[in-house]
Amino acid sequence: MYKLSIDAMSGDLGSSIVVEACLSFIKAHDDVELYVTGKSEELEKLKVERIHIIEARDTIPMDAGIMSVRRKKDSSMVKAVVLANEGETDGVVSCGSTGAFYTSAMLFMKRLEGIEKSCLMAILPTYNEKGVMLMDVGANAQNNAEQLHDFALMGNVYAKYMRGINDPKIALLNIGSESKKGDEAHQEAYKLLENDESIHFMGNIEGRDILNGEVDVIVTDGFSGNIALKCCEGTATTLMKLMKESLMSSLKSKIGALFVKDSLYALKDRFDYKSVGGALMMGFVKPVVKAHGASDAKAFNNAMELAYQMVKNDVVGKMKEGLKE
Amino acid sequence: MYKLSIDAMSGDLGSSIVVEACLSFIKAHDDVELYVTGKSEELEKLKVERIHIIEARDTIPMDAGIMSVRRKKDSSMVKAVVLANEGETDGVVSCGSTGAFYTSAMLFMKRLEGIEKSCLMAILPTYNEKGVMLMDVGANAQNNAEQLHDFALMGNVYAKYMRGINDPKIALLNIGSESKKGDEAHQEAYKLLENDESIHFMGNIEGRDILNGEVDVIVTDGFSGNIALKCCEGTATTLMKLMKESLMSSLKSKIGALFVKDSLYALKDRFDYKSVGGALMMGFVKPVVKAHGASDAKAFNNAMELAYQMVKNDVVGKMKEGLKE
Repeated sequence: MYKLSIDAMSGDLGSSIVVEACLSFIKAHDDVELYVTGKSEELEKLKVERIHIIEARDTIPMDAGIMSVRRKKDSSMVKAVVLANEGETDGVVSCGSTGAFYTSAMLFMKRLEGIEKSCLMAILPTYNEKGVMLMDVGANAQNNAEQLHDFALMGNVYAKYMRGINDPKIALLNIGSESKKGDEAHQEAYKLLENDESIHFMGNIEGRDILNGEVDVIVTDGFSGNIALKCCEGTATTLMKLMKESLMSSLKSKIGALFVKDSLYALKDRFDYKSVGGALMMGFVKPVVKAHGASDAKAFNNAMELAYQMVKNDVVGKMKEGLKE
Repeated sequence: MYKLSIDAMSGDLGSSIVVEACLSFIKAHDDVELYVTGKSEELEKLKVERIHIIEARDTIPMDAGIMSVRRKKDSSMVKAVVLANEGETDGVVSCGSTGAFYTSAMLFMKRLEGIEKSCLMAILPTYNEKGVMLMDVGANAQNNAEQLHDFALMGNVYAKYMRGINDPKIALLNIGSESKKGDEAHQEAYKLLENDESIHFMGNIEGRDILNGEVDVIVTDGFSGNIALKCCEGTATTLMKLMKESLMSSLKSKIGALFVKDSLYALKDRFDYKSVGGALMMGFVKPVVKAHGASDAKAFNNAMELAYQMVKNDVVGKMKEGLKE
């Protein structure tokens, strides 16, 4: 039996969508047990086989400061994390605030041996529909070369076993292609990555090439990665808004819009960063999966499926091995 | 008489467009003298009043490594820079490679007193058509808090006197809005900016808000700024390409495209980062203005106009004062 702890309370839409997702998930997977944390009176429907309700009276709201987490040991989020850390479950899923969830993991879950810094990974849509993993996207304000190297090793394992990419192409986000570009940490990281035969290092990648889909994993410090992610997101949002306005700007374009809207809506969906889906946390001893704060049951279900696949494929175990090599 | 040195040789399209631009510029401005560096046999047409031809036998090609600049003292680019540095002219314009031109200025032009690091400024298109200044976009691989503060002061003066913004809104690019976000340099820079009453500091800005046009100047270290600029550029390019493809994807959308293409082309032009127009160099004792490598005469003319306005408004002098306050 694979066991997941599920934080039922921290999302914007309340516990009902989590309840719905849990019931359908259990039905779809007969090798899973769920440990659901939250207020039992809201979880009545989960009194079924293979679901355990773990009472947690406190809730960490979406807008909570990340420091409040420390005082919220009876929250559904922290309890779900602790269950995984203590080995009661094999992984944890929440749709609470990314910052609070990450802080909960930082405070209440052990990191993989040899990992100094955990990180957040996001998958960005690309021109060729493959998508590209970007990590760290903001867990850290600064990273040294060894930490960047660790991110590459973890990303390599994830790309292989979770995204089915045979020989993942890994690049370092930098301000030019030459190995001497960037500050000392990036120059040093370039050397570490170049000399590591366990990965397929492609060299530096610049911001303008992130979305062209030619690499599978982009390694970056949390500061630059956060800015990169949000610049891509902001530009996509701005352009989509302007595109819509420009289609509504004249009678002629309005007529045309009737013909083109299906194609353009598909594009809009693809570059909707809300659907890019939060960020996965890496570097902990158990999979820590974040579903969207405004997740519907389907999105929450996807997050559970991701955690389940990570457990089933022992991705964290393989990261451990990858880090030792 | 305002005097500008003009590098006639370093652009992708050769000297002829520069010659054309110089002739029309002289005609439009009767208070300007031009000192044009290059091979005199290519500059025959410039033998007119108020234009001086300065022989320079060497050329720095667009793809030259920036280190080759050191050995190219007889190049049109270096000669144009030296003329300005030595006070023969009041500013310099080139359409050569940004890296080589910046390096020429670094090597052969003095910096403003008190400025540790010069920087590159780019103006990005925004949602509200105002545009936003981003600086540094890649001259430096790393910047400390004082340098970020200097960028803000120079940006403030430029926004006031060149963009006519009365009380420029200045923000610091960071990974969150709170003052404690980011690494030490950014936290320290926040304090310096917050406590400086000579500027209108708006706090931190995140990557996703760069293009919404709510601030006038965004201050950033060269590493993050380069990544931010190129991520915005890359996302815009990718989306425009996909938009075009999606309009050509079916008969129905092709019909619609006939009606909407004018509106969408206008949008494409606005977010064409090729037309965003290179980068302006700040922190030197004279205006250093880069025109596009693939500039046509009109683009080159615009760059000359920018240098002329900077000289006429004594923007560098005002930066000097701004830095003293």
